[in-house]
Amino acid sequence: MNVSIILAAGEGTRMKSDMPKVLHKVAGKAILSYVVDNCIANAMDKTVVIVGHKKADVMDYFKDAPLTFIEQAMGEGVPYGTGYAVYCAIDEFSDEDKVYILTGDTPLFKEETIARFRAYVESHDFDACVLTAVVSDPFGYGRIIRDQDSTIAGIVEEKDATDKEKAITEVNTGIFAFTGRALKENIGNLSSNNNQSELYLTDVIQMLKDDGKKVGGFTICDEEEMLGVNSRVQLAACEKIMRRRINKYHMENGVTFLDDASTLIDSGVKIGRDTILGPSIHLVGETTIGEGCVIQGASRIVDSTVADGAVIDSSVVEKSVVGSGVTMGPYAHLRPNCVLEENVHIGNFVEVKNSHIGKGTKAGHLAYIGDGDVGENVNISCGVIFCNYNGKEKFRTTIGDNAFIGSNVNLVAPIAIGEGAFIAAGSTVSKNVEDGSLAVERSEQRMIPGWNRRKDS
Amino acid sequence: MNVSIILAAGEGTRMKSDMPKVLHKVAGKAILSYVVDNCIANAMDKTVVIVGHKKADVMDYFKDAPLTFIEQAMGEGVPYGTGYAVYCAIDEFSDEDKVYILTGDTPLFKEETIARFRAYVESHDFDACVLTAVVSDPFGYGRIIRDQDSTIAGIVEEKDATDKEKAITEVNTGIFAFTGRALKENIGNLSSNNNQSELYLTDVIQMLKDDGKKVGGFTICDEEEMLGVNSRVQLAACEKIMRRRINKYHMENGVTFLDDASTLIDSGVKIGRDTILGPSIHLVGETTIGEGCVIQGASRIVDSTVADGAVIDSSVVEKSVVGSGVTMGPYAHLRPNCVLEENVHIGNFVEVKNSHIGKGTKAGHLAYIGDGDVGENVNISCGVIFCNYNGKEKFRTTIGDNAFIGSNVNLVAPIAIGEGAFIAAGSTVSKNVEDGSLAVERSEQRMIPGWNRRKDS
Amino acid sequence: MNVSIILAAGEGTRMKSDMPKVLHKVAGKAILSYVVDNCIANAMDKTVVIVGHKKADVMDYFKDAPLTFIEQAMGEGVPYGTGYAVYCAIDEFSDEDKVYILTGDTPLFKEETIARFRAYVESHDFDACVLTAVVSDPFGYGRIIRDQDSTIAGIVEEKDATDKEKAITEVNTGIFAFTGRALKENIGNLSSNNNQSELYLTDVIQMLKDDGKKVGGFTICDEEEMLGVNSRVQLAACEKIMRRRINKYHMENGVTFLDDASTLIDSGVKIGRDTILGPSIHLVGETTIGEGCVIQGASRIVDSTVADGAVIDSSVVEKSVVGSGVTMGPYAHLRPNCVLEENVHIGNFVEVKNSHIGKGTKAGHLAYIGDGDVGENVNISCGVIFCNYNGKEKFRTTIGDNAFIGSNVNLVAPIAIGEGAFIAAGSTVSKNVEDGSLAVERSEQRMIPGWNRRKDS
Repeated sequence: MNVSIILAAGEGTRMKSDMPKVLHKVAGKAILSYVVDNCIANAMDKTVVIVGHKKADVMDYFKDAPLTFIEQAMGEGVPYGTGYAVYCAIDEFSDEDKVYILTGDTPLFKEETIARFRAYVESHDFDACVLTAVVSDPFGYGRIIRDQDSTIAGIVEEKDATDKEKAITEVNTGIFAFTGRALKENIGNLSSNNNQSELYLTDVIQMLKDDGKKVGGFTICDEEEMLGVNSRVQLAACEKIMRRRINKYHMENGVTFLDDASTLIDSGVKIGRDTILGPSIHLVGETTIGEGCVIQGASRIVDSTVADGAVIDSSVVEKSVVGSGVTMGPYAHLRPNCVLEENVHIGNFVEVKNSHIGKGTKAGHLAYIGDGDVGENVNISCGVIFCNYNGKEKFRTTIGDNAFIGSNVNLVAPIAIGEGAFIAAGSTVSKNVEDGSLAVERSEQRMIPGWNRRKDS
Repeated sequence: MNVSIILAAGEGTRMKSDMPKVLHKVAGKAILSYVVDNCIANAMDKTVVIVGHKKADVMDYFKDAPLTFIEQAMGEGVPYGTGYAVYCAIDEFSDEDKVYILTGDTPLFKEETIARFRAYVESHDFDACVLTAVVSDPFGYGRIIRDQDSTIAGIVEEKDATDKEKAITEVNTGIFAFTGRALKENIGNLSSNNNQSELYLTDVIQMLKDDGKKVGGFTICDEEEMLGVNSRVQLAACEKIMRRRINKYHMENGVTFLDDASTLIDSGVKIGRDTILGPSIHLVGETTIGEGCVIQGASRIVDSTVADGAVIDSSVVEKSVVGSGVTMGPYAHLRPNCVLEENVHIGNFVEVKNSHIGKGTKAGHLAYIGDGDVGENVNISCGVIFCNYNGKEKFRTTIGDNAFIGSNVNLVAPIAIGEGAFIAAGSTVSKNVEDGSLAVERSEQRMIPGWNRRKDS
Repeated sequence: MNVSIILAAGEGTRMKSDMPKVLHKVAGKAILSYVVDNCIANAMDKTVVIVGHKKADVMDYFKDAPLTFIEQAMGEGVPYGTGYAVYCAIDEFSDEDKVYILTGDTPLFKEETIARFRAYVESHDFDACVLTAVVSDPFGYGRIIRDQDSTIAGIVEEKDATDKEKAITEVNTGIFAFTGRALKENIGNLSSNNNQSELYLTDVIQMLKDDGKKVGGFTICDEEEMLGVNSRVQLAACEKIMRRRINKYHMENGVTFLDDASTLIDSGVKIGRDTILGPSIHLVGETTIGEGCVIQGASRIVDSTVADGAVIDSSVVEKSVVGSGVTMGPYAHLRPNCVLEENVHIGNFVEVKNSHIGKGTKAGHLAYIGDGDVGENVNISCGVIFCNYNGKEKFRTTIGDNAFIGSNVNLVAPIAIGEGAFIAAGSTVSKNVEDGSLAVERSEQRMIPGWNRRKDS
């Protein structure tokens, strides 16, 4: 059996946050989710997460994930360090298992990296194996000492390293594989007799070595993968790298970016080819964009589906479905639960909420469509308001195909406007209007000639 | 005669696009346009464009440009490669011509670079001349082998290069000059006896050399110029370089950028000195901005003219003219064909479309001015709507100087409001109002005391 | 006494600006302000600013600062150069003073750098001391020649430097300290017998050295600090560095940045921990943001206070106070002098100006609240307009707690709406409404059946 153990108990003091470090987000996804998903993608039979600091928050966040949580005690008298964290999970694996140790605060390891590490481990007969990286500046990392047979002889921490060792650029990423047996036999014997009074997992490597066991090392060259998050500065650095990776992926799929650097796309968003993304676009959550779309003007699209050929300018779209050929904005807002059928036009300063809008219907300016069921080819003129709320309850408005709703009309819901009906500008309508009828609520236009002169006198 | 031949037949498979590669845009202008404009700026007597993949699209795009198109056959049995492309144009030049070969997918060559190359060619007596570049990482490029007299001895491709040759950092940019005679005598003799089974233009250089002819090399140092576009990643890279160049140009002319990196300005935009551009500004197409303006808040200005001292915040302006001292936004929208005279104020959530607005007129909030002719010093209150559409036709609204249009007024076009007229708030007005008259369309305000208590009971 | 002399007389021709160079802004603050504030923070007893070009503008800008201005004559026949500028201030210090010379166009020197320089000066017995920097590319800077005792032997300008001297990477930052005596004895003896016919302050160093005096050098390693602004390109470079510094500061305090690079925060802004800043946010002037806020969607917040837990999306906030738990936007606008109490909701396309809004009140869509005093838990429906202006004067609107203002209602000020009052949709109300009353201004809804068929016939 393959068991992965993810270390996620740390406090992350430097984050200065009320939220556990591993729940902070990178490209819209919790740091720890990347590690968990990586284990799932690599078909681990069991994934154990060691939680400690704010463990309830972490466990709640992942309550639907196929994880085994081990609650590490925290506080005075309890040992610290990666060694103790792994020790807490000692009952979760057997001698025959392969155990992979991952860190919960390193979101940038790629699935294929872990897959290649696993393949390497499985094709060799090591008691332990370290995932290492060659980095440009090894300062602060544990240096990898290789034996003449190129197995690992040890890991030397910065403070213990000789000048010659300090020059080594291969470092420990913090990811390990062990045989269950090797880990079980040694993890209980760690000593906190060191500067930080912590139990170090890396000491197990030394023990194995002293015991004549074989420790392998699998090296990656992309040093960005091992970046961990201990501060918001590092969080921002990881965010930038992840965003760049995501954007590159979409470019390679045929998406044009006018300004790669200012375009933020969450992990998991899908975009069709020949779509053009203008500057400062933010695509969030479970979002799918079709082919040949143009999204521009600092638009943000959240948990929504946009079909081919849609044009969205300077707008916010939330949890909605936008049909093909729809044009939207600038400055439009779809609140959750809207469906715009194909070729709908939603113009500037228009809000749509919890509504279904039929094909070819237009709402060009300054309107509010709330709780509406609007047919096809309806004209919703400027300033139309669906009065869906009476201070106590909300009601729906229904409009038939080809109706014309004049400017500044108030439709007081619940109300039904028939097919081809015409509501005159400025009317407040509270009774149903039959198919093809004209409705008007208006007084006489009165004039007072010369009023201007009188006023000024 | 100077003849330029631009190679623009390639498919650009890695772009993953339905659009021919050379029509993709960099800083708002098609990649091929940069090369074409470069030829025109350098006074080529004739510019030949070799088209192939999606040739109809390319020819249509440039249908008004002074170009000669040669349609290269594409498909099975037809030779590939730059050599064949040039061969297709063999009838377009004579022995006595100077022929310049340019690549259609390299938008970053500067006009002065080509001018200096041409001057170099014209001041020497070469049979051919290669434009070369010294680059930091020559991997993948054809290396330039120089003779002892510093003429070019050959171009060695990556796969054929010895280690010593691989260390050469002078590379072939893909731009050449030939005498018509040298090209005519050799271009027909190329062989496709190579790995890619293509006809290579670079082989002509070898033939000339073998024939004892003299091949010059003119070297540039800005390696960015030779970047070509074969993928959206490269497109984004070129976009970034071009944007940076453009922004630097404007900075040197006295424009302040609050955030250079997020400011996108198309090729050809003009901006006056002491104008301040805030973050995330996008200036598009044929746009001119005056002196001392402030443009901020992710505004986009398209094909428009903005006079001195205008302030535009978080707005979209399309194909319009904005007078001096105008203040606009945040969240305003000029649709095409608007003229705002000086000191007009267009406030938040106001749309103007196909209208002329006189000096000093104000429309401060939530209004729609469509198809209007508005005089000077008019007050267009909040919520005013020009009802320009009756479901079938559009009509115009005319308003005289100094008129006051009250809040939420609907002006049902066609309609004329006289000078100094006053329209009371909430009125829907469908008949003309004379100069100085008051118009009101309103019912009595009725009250139901204690309604609140009854309602709750 | 410690006297600082800031050189701020230069013309800054390359800025191409009508504004004096030192008044251009970096992160929202004038370049010279950074230098002035640095002197104030370092407890200088007297700060002298040498002004020349556009001196009236500079003096006016700093009219409230505790500065002594010396007006340097400019024009034909008047000597140029830093030496002459300092000479103009000769009466502002005495022999016993320590005199610090700073350049007015270098905004990036940190307070602690000047503090450390001053501490170094005060703990040594130098006649002069130069603030130097070690830089990666010393080209163009005056190189520092050190004696064997590591005091400064001289400063060699680029054009006078030997190849060996050119290789020196320690350069003159332009910041000096002198004893008053050393400066007084030498500053009058400078010669303009050089290429630029200027009087160089650096020549005083040479004079002191020739005179057997001791010149110290205090070195900094962050070469960014010495960057000066002579062009808009350099202005943009300083802007970028300052922004990065500011953002890093906030990250270290526990603020999350989704896109560090596009987030612009002025000097002096305060932000609480666990606040998340989305892309393209611009925080301007005297602004304070509380803890746990979310600010996203290219919002700009100017001179305002936002309390804990507020969510602001795609909005502009000016000179206002936003209470805790307030939700705003997208596309909302607070104009100056608004107070939103806690849990107020201001939705899309809503403008608030010069108004006080009580707890829990909601204005969800397309409304204008101008000059209003609104109670708690009021519902301001879509399209409501506070008609505060009659073309001549502005008036206030008062609304009691728990009132319901229906859609598209016009409240013609001055007007008072009582507690729990209900105004029916589409009404224009110009008379006060008592507590608990219903007010309606509306005609009969008339119908014309079959109008659609008639219209088409």
